[in-house]
Amino acid sequence: MRGAVIHAPGDVRFEELDDPRIVQPTDAIIRTVVTCVCGSDLWPYRGAEPVGEPHPMGHEYVGVVEEVGAEVTSVRPGQFVIGSFATSDNTCENCRNGYQSNCVRREFMSTCQAEYVRIPNAQGTLVATPEHPAEELLPSLLTLSDVMGTGWYAARAAEVRPGSTALVVGDGAVGLCGVIAARELGAERIIAMSRHEPRQKLALEFGATDLVTERGDEGIARVKELTRGVGVDSALECVGTPEAMRQAVRATRPGGNVGFVGVPHDVTIDGQELFFSHVGLRGGPAPVRDYLPDLIQRVLDGRIDPGKVFDFTLPLDQVAEGYKAMDERRAIKTLLRP
Amino acid sequence: MRGAVIHAPGDVRFEELDDPRIVQPTDAIIRTVVTCVCGSDLWPYRGAEPVGEPHPMGHEYVGVVEEVGAEVTSVRPGQFVIGSFATSDNTCENCRNGYQSNCVRREFMSTCQAEYVRIPNAQGTLVATPEHPAEELLPSLLTLSDVMGTGWYAARAAEVRPGSTALVVGDGAVGLCGVIAARELGAERIIAMSRHEPRQKLALEFGATDLVTERGDEGIARVKELTRGVGVDSALECVGTPEAMRQAVRATRPGGNVGFVGVPHDVTIDGQELFFSHVGLRGGPAPVRDYLPDLIQRVLDGRIDPGKVFDFTLPLDQVAEGYKAMDERRAIKTLLRP
Repeated sequence: MRGAVIHAPGDVRFEELDDPRIVQPTDAIIRTVVTCVCGSDLWPYRGAEPVGEPHPMGHEYVGVVEEVGAEVTSVRPGQFVIGSFATSDNTCENCRNGYQSNCVRREFMSTCQAEYVRIPNAQGTLVATPEHPAEELLPSLLTLSDVMGTGWYAARAAEVRPGSTALVVGDGAVGLCGVIAARELGAERIIAMSRHEPRQKLALEFGATDLVTERGDEGIARVKELTRGVGVDSALECVGTPEAMRQAVRATRPGGNVGFVGVPHDVTIDGQELFFSHVGLRGGPAPVRDYLPDLIQRVLDGRIDPGKVFDFTLPLDQVAEGYKAMDERRAIKTLLRP
Repeated sequence: MRGAVIHAPGDVRFEELDDPRIVQPTDAIIRTVVTCVCGSDLWPYRGAEPVGEPHPMGHEYVGVVEEVGAEVTSVRPGQFVIGSFATSDNTCENCRNGYQSNCVRREFMSTCQAEYVRIPNAQGTLVATPEHPAEELLPSLLTLSDVMGTGWYAARAAEVRPGSTALVVGDGAVGLCGVIAARELGAERIIAMSRHEPRQKLALEFGATDLVTERGDEGIARVKELTRGVGVDSALECVGTPEAMRQAVRATRPGGNVGFVGVPHDVTIDGQELFFSHVGLRGGPAPVRDYLPDLIQRVLDGRIDPGKVFDFTLPLDQVAEGYKAMDERRAIKTLLRP
């Protein structure tokens, strides 16, 4: 089969690879239906994380089950399935607590920009749809394996409640999905920080009520202005930089909450500042598996349409161009079709 | 009148001071019935915080109202009252959100180790008891102005729930009150980190089910052992040092919560570690005012007895010895009687 391999920053190639095989009796093999490029794939692509040895890429996937290991009974060959970027047995104590992305058997997916993929912990990771979904739903279903689930967790970690005010820091795919999540969880007011017109437009379409184009201290001041000087109830930090974290914490009211889902890069939090802010903080890789049944239903019902974050589609063999377009901010997110 | 004044690290004196007067129409003057020395008073006493110019000390108090300003109608002269170490109007948006210790009119009390005290924002700060309480209840009522309220907030911020497992880091008065709070909020298992026998004894009396004497990585490992390798649901960080924060975060399970109430000194939190831990974090000066009616009732009903943290009592004029005894760890907490 063929798949994407990163060799060095800026150097992603589509190459012949070994076909994946069942290694553990808990594995499944799926044939990829659609996959995509994630904002977090850009960290190594941009050299902000070491690449090391050449290795496959991709952690977002929907597909059709080809084969299952002896211990996998929850899905069967021929079914259309969606799974999280972090695999889980869905039975350990962390899973039962709703933190499947911290499963004791967790493995992070990393080979999904390919024609076939091996899924470890398939029993607890994959969720099948009732039938093979319509073509037009594929992009939205694909977002559930990461960005929409991650936006959902950001809103949950930030404790968005009916009638509340939410701030979304970051206008990438996760931030935009965070707008959808905040709306679905009942936020009355959703302030999106964005200065890129196509993303602003999508944020408004997804439910944002206010846009803030200022950044840094000016951005914080603008959010405070919009909230009677008090700050927002919930902030969704969907970037992972020190600047984004600072904006989220300082724009949140005393007793409010920040959910942070951008993998932190060089972020440190000053204990005394956090103390006097009274702001609650929770982050992490999203427990997407916990949300899948609910989010699949919302997509099938046509209630949410997160697939709109894909503004660029390519055949899988042009994956390199998909990275390039996102790196140059010509695309919010690239969908790849094998 | 007379009161305590700190002149330099290790140098607290009992001196003649001006009688406090009504300055704002929202003030009240109380005659101190009992006051005390707080663990946080030891930061400047030990030179860990700058002392600056000589200034009065003390932020914990119960007393009898002597005089009220023109706008104070909620309490009247002759009533026995308790108030928070942080004053609040109890009407602003932060107060209504339950964060009175972040009131827009907040003033931190700082002159309470004295015979008389001026209370700013008296209307929203002071709570009167139904009648003048019995002598034996005074120590417990005094703890409500800070340490018991702070332990309560630690447990609330750490989201202690019925049936859960709580860890208390710190065996000072706040930590010991945190044990009481965790028990009252229904924790089934309460692990207290303590290596001082009198404090261990009090922790067990207050409801601790397990004691951990190890510190640092060994302490974390021991807590993990006690919790099936998973960690606690809630950790109450009642110290304020980097080591205590590290223990609290690392001993908490994914999805669990740390409430931190020790004023952080040189504490920074690594964003990436917090991210992958999935631990929620909330701290701050406790919104004691929010809890006062409930906690007063629990004391009057004999349900809680936090006054036991006072293991040393002195006449107010020997306040200097009170600091010394706590600094040398001869006393957990010193009660002072004018």
